[in-house]
Amino acid sequence: MKNGRIAVGVLGIDHRHIYGMLQGMLDVGCEAVAWWTDGEPIPTNGFRDRFPDLKRVADKRAILEDKTIDLVLISAIPRDRADLAEAAMRHGKDVMVDKPGCIDVVQLARLRAAAAESGRIWSVDFSERFEVPAVTKAAELVAAGAVGKVVQTVGLGPHRHNPHLRPAWFYDRAATGGILCDIGSHQIDQFLFFAGLDDAEIAFAATENFANPAHPAFEDFGEIVLRGRGARGYVRVDWFTPDALPTWGDGRLVILGTEGTIELRKYVDVGGRAGGDHLFLSNKTRYEWIDAREAGTPYFGCLAADIRDRTQSAMPQAHAFRVTELAIQAQRLCDQARQPSQ
Amino acid sequence: MKNGRIAVGVLGIDHRHIYGMLQGMLDVGCEAVAWWTDGEPIPTNGFRDRFPDLKRVADKRAILEDKTIDLVLISAIPRDRADLAEAAMRHGKDVMVDKPGCIDVVQLARLRAAAAESGRIWSVDFSERFEVPAVTKAAELVAAGAVGKVVQTVGLGPHRHNPHLRPAWFYDRAATGGILCDIGSHQIDQFLFFAGLDDAEIAFAATENFANPAHPAFEDFGEIVLRGRGARGYVRVDWFTPDALPTWGDGRLVILGTEGTIELRKYVDVGGRAGGDHLFLSNKTRYEWIDAREAGTPYFGCLAADIRDRTQSAMPQAHAFRVTELAIQAQRLCDQARQPSQ
Repeated sequence: MKNGRIAVGVLGIDHRHIYGMLQGMLDVGCEAVAWWTDGEPIPTNGFRDRFPDLKRVADKRAILEDKTIDLVLISAIPRDRADLAEAAMRHGKDVMVDKPGCIDVVQLARLRAAAAESGRIWSVDFSERFEVPAVTKAAELVAAGAVGKVVQTVGLGPHRHNPHLRPAWFYDRAATGGILCDIGSHQIDQFLFFAGLDDAEIAFAATENFANPAHPAFEDFGEIVLRGRGARGYVRVDWFTPDALPTWGDGRLVILGTEGTIELRKYVDVGGRAGGDHLFLSNKTRYEWIDAREAGTPYFGCLAADIRDRTQSAMPQAHAFRVTELAIQAQRLCDQARQPSQ
Repeated sequence: MKNGRIAVGVLGIDHRHIYGMLQGMLDVGCEAVAWWTDGEPIPTNGFRDRFPDLKRVADKRAILEDKTIDLVLISAIPRDRADLAEAAMRHGKDVMVDKPGCIDVVQLARLRAAAAESGRIWSVDFSERFEVPAVTKAAELVAAGAVGKVVQTVGLGPHRHNPHLRPAWFYDRAATGGILCDIGSHQIDQFLFFAGLDDAEIAFAATENFANPAHPAFEDFGEIVLRGRGARGYVRVDWFTPDALPTWGDGRLVILGTEGTIELRKYVDVGGRAGGDHLFLSNKTRYEWIDAREAGTPYFGCLAADIRDRTQSAMPQAHAFRVTELAIQAQRLCDQARQPSQ
């Protein structure tokens, strides 16, 4: 940390989420030092356009062994994220990783051990919460009691498939971890967060390949039912965003409370108002639209404070691990169900 | 049938759904002959206000044995509907019953036998489909291929609890059949209909009493995951409609297709447009609001034609029974899960 400024390195830019991850940290005063990635993944040009002055290094050790770097951002192929995160923590660096943070229980156990032994932060940028001001506003309303006690959430996460823009690893189940492990993890995060739970169980999970026979191992649909103390969650994720939609997905979150309901239309309000971050609140006294665009995205600033102060304000460390574990468990339930019976 | 007009009798008005059931048939040219109910249930005054000239009879046999009556409408307490419907069919009358059409498998078996042996129609007025023009419009769009192949539906059915207006039987589990059997059946109907399936299985079901400890047997929340050939369905029903909402529930249906999505906001568009029957379509070429108020409710006219012509245009007979059976199965799964383990 030079003059109190957090220094950031980048390992792996295989997913475009790296743009938001790095910009988020720069916006709260961090300094980017260098980036490394393996080869020339599709986001390379976009990354160079956004961060033209940032130095690329040819060997990741140049970042791991740079003692001035405090935080490493990782958006490599999901399969490779755990190795990079573990190495970063073992080199004394805090980590922010794109979701999924890892893709199997062996990787997860190694990450838990590395975080515990190094005392470093392993944070997952659940961008569908942390980069969405409407979610910030919903959190404020729920905390203020606007819907009573939260008893259920429904998260709908359609994503644009864009097959012509996808790298080969996108269709390699062993590289992605599967649809529930990947984009399902966002939704598990939001359920635990809004229900105020530190744990839950997977009551049901299923995946499907409804419409992509050319990629038999690809899952274009997944669903999970979560059950926790006093609350339930339903999650649906899919790759069926309609072509004409002006954004990558009509992501929704419906928060059902004993005295009110909140619906988020995060990215688009089809046939309605322009822009994103639409919040709809119904409770004992009102039913209304709330413009949540200005509610902010405190995750990045909180993480910077956590790096300085060794706190857990952005996200409890146990939450990051437990969400990832539940996503892996949900995926595993589906994989086991698909095994031919003996 | 006098001069080609279908004559209608009413047995049991314990649920206000009878208003829409009778009005729907009157609107397509039927003639109401008489009504009977046990005692003075809460809807009695409302029924008299709406149909002031209709004769009440003191004994239900006056309707069952009136050979001029073609169709009997039944909205008694759920527990009692099967006996009335069976008696009506055995007396040569077609039947339209409020949902749930019956509440257990023994009743269902008797109804199936009565329908088969009498050749009479046993129709369930799934009002959340049959009385909602937006659903009619969605059916037209799906049939025209506007969303490709339907792969999933999500139905959210919040209902206003209104405890101060509820009769004692509302909290008597043995009288209602439970939340999934009752308001869940609407949603199973819509899943099978929009997925174009004549069968499915209950992959998961759960009920909860989250917020009504004064009525320990009452279920204020229920959910079902359905699985059919090439499609899945998720259903959530609850009694948590917020007080300020200007209607009984913000009922939603999201139809996910391989090439498009339809969302229905059936009864209210919170913070949006006035009125109900809002349809939102996104597909390959457009994303837009469609005003579906004028799309009509063909169920009643189709049922009248079926009564005249002995056809099944309003709803296949097997569908009415299978939906009811699945709702009972879903409920039973939850009841069994609640038994203490041996």
